[in-house]
Amino acid sequence: MGRQRFSASCRSLVVVGVTLASVPGTTIGLDAQSLKDLQTPDTPLVLKAQGSFFVGGEKVEQTKGELGDLGPGGHITVNQMYVRYMVPQGGDGNVPVVMVHGATLTGKSWETTPDGRMGWDEYFVRKGHPVYVPDQVGRGRSGFNQAVFNDARAGSVTPANLPRWLRFSDEVVWPNFRIGPEPGHPFPDSQFPVAALDELAKQGVPDVSFGGLPTPNPTFKALSDLATQLNGAVLMGHSQSGSFPLEAALLNPAAAKALVLVEPGRCPDTYTAGQIKTLATIPILVVFGDHRDTPTGISIRPSWQLSFESCQTLIGRIKEAGGHAEMLSPADRGIHGNSHMIMQDKNNLQIADLILQWIEERVTKRGNK
Amino acid sequence: MGRQRFSASCRSLVVVGVTLASVPGTTIGLDAQSLKDLQTPDTPLVLKAQGSFFVGGEKVEQTKGELGDLGPGGHITVNQMYVRYMVPQGGDGNVPVVMVHGATLTGKSWETTPDGRMGWDEYFVRKGHPVYVPDQVGRGRSGFNQAVFNDARAGSVTPANLPRWLRFSDEVVWPNFRIGPEPGHPFPDSQFPVAALDELAKQGVPDVSFGGLPTPNPTFKALSDLATQLNGAVLMGHSQSGSFPLEAALLNPAAAKALVLVEPGRCPDTYTAGQIKTLATIPILVVFGDHRDTPTGISIRPSWQLSFESCQTLIGRIKEAGGHAEMLSPADRGIHGNSHMIMQDKNNLQIADLILQWIEERVTKRGNK
Repeated sequence: MGRQRFSASCRSLVVVGVTLASVPGTTIGLDAQSLKDLQTPDTPLVLKAQGSFFVGGEKVEQTKGELGDLGPGGHITVNQMYVRYMVPQGGDGNVPVVMVHGATLTGKSWETTPDGRMGWDEYFVRKGHPVYVPDQVGRGRSGFNQAVFNDARAGSVTPANLPRWLRFSDEVVWPNFRIGPEPGHPFPDSQFPVAALDELAKQGVPDVSFGGLPTPNPTFKALSDLATQLNGAVLMGHSQSGSFPLEAALLNPAAAKALVLVEPGRCPDTYTAGQIKTLATIPILVVFGDHRDTPTGISIRPSWQLSFESCQTLIGRIKEAGGHAEMLSPADRGIHGNSHMIMQDKNNLQIADLILQWIEERVTKRGNK
Repeated sequence: MGRQRFSASCRSLVVVGVTLASVPGTTIGLDAQSLKDLQTPDTPLVLKAQGSFFVGGEKVEQTKGELGDLGPGGHITVNQMYVRYMVPQGGDGNVPVVMVHGATLTGKSWETTPDGRMGWDEYFVRKGHPVYVPDQVGRGRSGFNQAVFNDARAGSVTPANLPRWLRFSDEVVWPNFRIGPEPGHPFPDSQFPVAALDELAKQGVPDVSFGGLPTPNPTFKALSDLATQLNGAVLMGHSQSGSFPLEAALLNPAAAKALVLVEPGRCPDTYTAGQIKTLATIPILVVFGDHRDTPTGISIRPSWQLSFESCQTLIGRIKEAGGHAEMLSPADRGIHGNSHMIMQDKNNLQIADLILQWIEERVTKRGNK
């Protein structure tokens, strides 16, 4: 389309930098990202199939009040997982890749970047892989179970017992997503498209998964079921969901062709020897960006270096058990400045190529597809 | 992919019919829609571009508690509108179509049908139109403003003042979406893929728009802004959003190339003579399915025939003002059994063809693209 050109906008950042400092407490209208910021690839995308579907879900009965009081009580479905997919023409035989997003985000993480460049979803498809992008249970198009909030409204649930809704402020995103050490001050070598930071802010949605979901998180089983239905898939998680591929793989190891853990919030230290033995049968890649020592401003995880180290420990345990787990730290290869949102960084396709090369070597070449 | 075949499943319905009647009050695990139910078209889909972006949004400052208590207070963006798009190769010059979903639903409405057939989003693209599918502000990947719920949790908002979250029960969907007069009893001529009704149930998400959004609904302006950025578009709404194209068109009539109102909850009777004069400059098509006399079981709209009649009245006013507004009632053409979810009915592409033909005549042939 004529209005979509290779012209990343640099307007948004200026607006943010000024407004955050000058008019706190007010509501500020934001310019929409103009369609003209969206970049059109040089060659068409040829898809054998695309669309969406759901995995999982449970039927529950709720009262009139729990359903919002506009109709009678009855049954609804909760805990289902929405999945959008694209299958490239000629890509049937290649291993599918499932990409799961992090906290306060949705599957949008993997789509068009904040500055209008191609996301990993399309790039992996163009490299021949069917790609499946879910919204975690409880968020986005997967919905959530609203009953407890309507119950609080009606007085039958104590408000203090409501689950919290989490969102990260722009001020927290700067150090926590490692755009820069503090708001308005990007790292000189930052790979994040800082001018489009307001577009990242729009990707935020309320996240009820800190106390408002069943245990274990239904997304674990949904991911495992999806991989099973696909007759095997590479499971890729990010941040909050960075460890989800491990949990899904433990439910059905045969369906997990490989695991890619992108900037996991933590790598679990609680796995038994038996679980480690299972994980040692699956190729695992952990990916971490740069500037991990930056203080996050969040008490529960003072720095991402701690997350990195927890994954190094897990990698060590898996290797001791004879497995193939490894760390990809682009900074160690001279690629500096990658942020927590590495799939949206300016060099996102360079990082994708490193992951694709690993999948080629660890999965495709071994006939494990 | 080998696992995606033309084999619509008939298993889900049986499960629902039995479980609703036999084990009320229990939680019932649902089988996922198997990937094998997804149908693969005979020819590839060739896209010049695809991806997603946001329209609108406001920056607001919130407290630590309002943001979920895991970090300090600060600014977030709310009231933005997520939009996914596909542009067909060679379709740049054709008028774009924006498809907006109804209450308790998301943009998923227009994607793959519950029984795995092609949705209107892909079909309109295959017919040459760029297609843009938003999630309404407050739902799905557009997120919502969570502050008031966290405030209630902290005790600073009275629970009775919380906005309600609406979902429709399966029992309400049967008559309200006109699948059949009561649960488990489809109309003999129903066009809805009844065997896949549980997959429609999974499309439901909590809807805060009945009292929990700013006034006017931010989606009106976001739709108008989107149409403006597109240099003109056909705006299509459904059910709750059936009247949204009218509201968006009144904000910028020049950008509204045509309006398609699919099963509007109501057509407004409050427009001034000046507003009607403006709407008379835009081609308008209203689409209604069959069995409109079915009692819905919802007090605020006892039957869809009342909605139909409100639109006949609006059409009359616009025609009196010299405009081109018309009703498409497939039943009047001998096409019987269409439901409220007409874009998902078994004959959904037949209905789409009627709308595409109207767009061709009212927009394309008149050079108004």
